[in-house]
Amino acid sequence: MKRIKLTVAYDGTNYCGWQLQPNGITIEGVLNRALSELLGEEIRVIGASRTDAGVHSLGNVAVFDTETRIPPEKISYAVNQRLPEDVVVQESCETAPDWHPRHCSSRKTYEYRILNRRFPLPTRRLDTYFVYRELDTEKMRQAAEYLVGTHDFKSFCSVNTAVEDTVRTIYDCRVEKNGDVIAIRVTGSGFLYNMVRIIAGTLVEVGTGVRGPEEIPGILRKKNRKAAGPTAPAHGLTMIGILYE
Amino acid sequence: MKRIKLTVAYDGTNYCGWQLQPNGITIEGVLNRALSELLGEEIRVIGASRTDAGVHSLGNVAVFDTETRIPPEKISYAVNQRLPEDVVVQESCETAPDWHPRHCSSRKTYEYRILNRRFPLPTRRLDTYFVYRELDTEKMRQAAEYLVGTHDFKSFCSVNTAVEDTVRTIYDCRVEKNGDVIAIRVTGSGFLYNMVRIIAGTLVEVGTGVRGPEEIPGILRKKNRKAAGPTAPAHGLTMIGILYE
Repeated sequence: MKRIKLTVAYDGTNYCGWQLQPNGITIEGVLNRALSELLGEEIRVIGASRTDAGVHSLGNVAVFDTETRIPPEKISYAVNQRLPEDVVVQESCETAPDWHPRHCSSRKTYEYRILNRRFPLPTRRLDTYFVYRELDTEKMRQAAEYLVGTHDFKSFCSVNTAVEDTVRTIYDCRVEKNGDVIAIRVTGSGFLYNMVRIIAGTLVEVGTGVRGPEEIPGILRKKNRKAAGPTAPAHGLTMIGILYE
Repeated sequence: MKRIKLTVAYDGTNYCGWQLQPNGITIEGVLNRALSELLGEEIRVIGASRTDAGVHSLGNVAVFDTETRIPPEKISYAVNQRLPEDVVVQESCETAPDWHPRHCSSRKTYEYRILNRRFPLPTRRLDTYFVYRELDTEKMRQAAEYLVGTHDFKSFCSVNTAVEDTVRTIYDCRVEKNGDVIAIRVTGSGFLYNMVRIIAGTLVEVGTGVRGPEEIPGILRKKNRKAAGPTAPAHGLTMIGILYE
């Protein structure tokens, strides 16, 4: 028995998110099916990041156990033949039999992309959130700086979760403008449910001038979801990758 | 009666190209329908570039005549409400009643994008052509330089056309690498049928070493489609914009 680690990229547009669901196609579901067919065993992957419907990924991580004799690094090529075009394994390798992608300390990076221009662009409609009002990226940058560090991010966590510890560390939070795309790139020890999307929604409010950057520390202190801005739509979010220590 | 000029962006994935077809949804078709509904007249647009199925656009140009009293620059906003998400008018303005988007001299810019890496990326599958073999962009750049100028591009024209004059001027042809995306950006006085895709297919052969950059002048001299490389797939191509003199 070997444990195999996969790096998985996907366009989340046509999926009900990562996690298996009784009534909907999920990334986990198509991976399980393609791997089970390929290896002739019942495979159940364990994912690092259970991304929401519409969220994309360049490098989510998953593991599974198998008896196969296919060399671990060849599994990526073989399973891609059985996967749809919008889910592609980028790498496969063997890992320790007890290694779990959610029980190891790691740095996860997400990017939230905003398309800031007068009209939407059809070719960017699936991976950016269109905002018509002009955004002040300098102010968004200032606001982002307040989020870096170890804080209780309860204000930036969806109320639809029962998580107890809402303290997380953000190592880096950058706002970069490239043409009319503004990218908010956040690296952290882990993220609460909807945390990056609530950060994005709050930074958009800062960018339009509805809030000042200096309000961020007060929002954190309130530990109340209502203090922060709205949850920005899922399709602007891409999980970039995970670095394990 | 006024003549209105539109700048139109679209994701060509779900369309049978620009031009009206009896059995298929086209960009021209959805524009005609949305404009006719909006203005209450039968509208027939005339497009500058009749892009193929799967080809995208950031700035194709079209004109139509109307009796409407809607201010010309407001038509963009109004018609976008009736267009699908993958076709968005970027600008509308009044133009001279006899101005025709194909009968004026202009500079058209196209970009052909190649994704050059080990595995396909799901989020770039619709607007890049995936090439696994490593491409030498320096050699592609050298080859591109030979194409600049006024030449008979018969070797770079699909045989499925009856065009007589195959002489065209290319003002600029750049090859730029950004991460794992290689973009071939060509600006010219006009392009023959499939010309940019045949240029891209030939430059890919140069990039893989199948041909040398110095073979380009000989390919041009042969004036024979068989002398050039294959036609690269439509979905890698985006019409960037048109500059009228």
